[in-house]
Amino acid sequence: MDIAILIYPRFTALDAVGPYEVLSRLPGARVTFVAEQATLQRTDTGQLGLLADAALEELPNPEIVLVPGGPGQSELMEDGPVHAWLRAADATSTWTASVCTGSLILGAAGLLTGRRATSNWQALDDLGGLGAEVVHERVVFDGKYATAAGVTAGLDMALSLAAKVAGDQVAQAIQLGLEYDPEPPFDAGSPGKAPAEIVEAVRAYSRFEHVS
Amino acid sequence: MDIAILIYPRFTALDAVGPYEVLSRLPGARVTFVAEQATLQRTDTGQLGLLADAALEELPNPEIVLVPGGPGQSELMEDGPVHAWLRAADATSTWTASVCTGSLILGAAGLLTGRRATSNWQALDDLGGLGAEVVHERVVFDGKYATAAGVTAGLDMALSLAAKVAGDQVAQAIQLGLEYDPEPPFDAGSPGKAPAEIVEAVRAYSRFEHVS
Repeated sequence: MDIAILIYPRFTALDAVGPYEVLSRLPGARVTFVAEQATLQRTDTGQLGLLADAALEELPNPEIVLVPGGPGQSELMEDGPVHAWLRAADATSTWTASVCTGSLILGAAGLLTGRRATSNWQALDDLGGLGAEVVHERVVFDGKYATAAGVTAGLDMALSLAAKVAGDQVAQAIQLGLEYDPEPPFDAGSPGKAPAEIVEAVRAYSRFEHVS
Repeated sequence: MDIAILIYPRFTALDAVGPYEVLSRLPGARVTFVAEQATLQRTDTGQLGLLADAALEELPNPEIVLVPGGPGQSELMEDGPVHAWLRAADATSTWTASVCTGSLILGAAGLLTGRRATSNWQALDDLGGLGAEVVHERVVFDGKYATAAGVTAGLDMALSLAAKVAGDQVAQAIQLGLEYDPEPPFDAGSPGKAPAEIVEAVRAYSRFEHVS
């Protein structure tokens, strides 16, 4: 089972690596990190580089396509090679998935029109503007389309996806293998739970570029 | 603030990338992925390569040292350049941390003797054999030593560490930025919660190499 994870300059590492860690443990999984060129891709901080082992054209028909988010998403809103590859891969994929603002890329490529979907909490209006039906949930499935909220939601999405692909027992074994029994030290992981001043600080600091 | 994350052949990507995603967002943080050689390091699945941007000797005095786990840990139990670097870095670090079986490497380097610490659930006896006082908790602090249980526990450890370094508000802002409001689809993330047959299956499948 070929699983293609798209990476690009200024993606957010954990958006991609969380789902990779889950999905690579599926029986028969072969994960390939793909990019426009098969070269090192620097993350949003500039402090980490992941190698794209293949160029897009080398993996035209993956069973699972996954698009992470990150500030570099804003450079992928126009039609071009990435959108063309996504549309072609989606035409034959079993699952098409995104994490965080990766859903904006899927939306801009025309793949979420009229579909229930989610994104980073700062990007939900933009997602709606791209034609999706915005759902305020952490993980959203609509047919073969799986979208996750911000960054760490990719772990929850990938575990749900693993269960759909290989059954609950396999997904539970993966969860145990990753010792995913979360105990966050604070209860500040969503804008509805974090103190208002923290929400405003994050909004100001992240300077999320809204889709024009 | 220099933060060195040690990587090596067959490390587990999420052990390193979870804490990276948290700690790189600390004010003034400069994360560097380091390895014996400053070359691409393949993860345990072979399906992902992360670049080590610096060799060990280029970063002798990081404020924070972090050691991820993974099957390749078994190749780092003998004294050698990695242990020598860890001992030297630890002599001046503000925090010395590990995720999963990374604590076995710290223990083998002699840095956890008599200290309260944890590891992957399959490695706790081995950790005790290396002289640590094993604590059955997801995140354990003993002075400047921070150890996390398996893989995803690195996220919780890193958030707690972020709070100690920069205060609760900064840690909460990072948590919100990563939308870390976990909703695992199953309650199978620890050996005490997963069904017994799942625990046995994971034990058999992972073939964890105990320290001899």
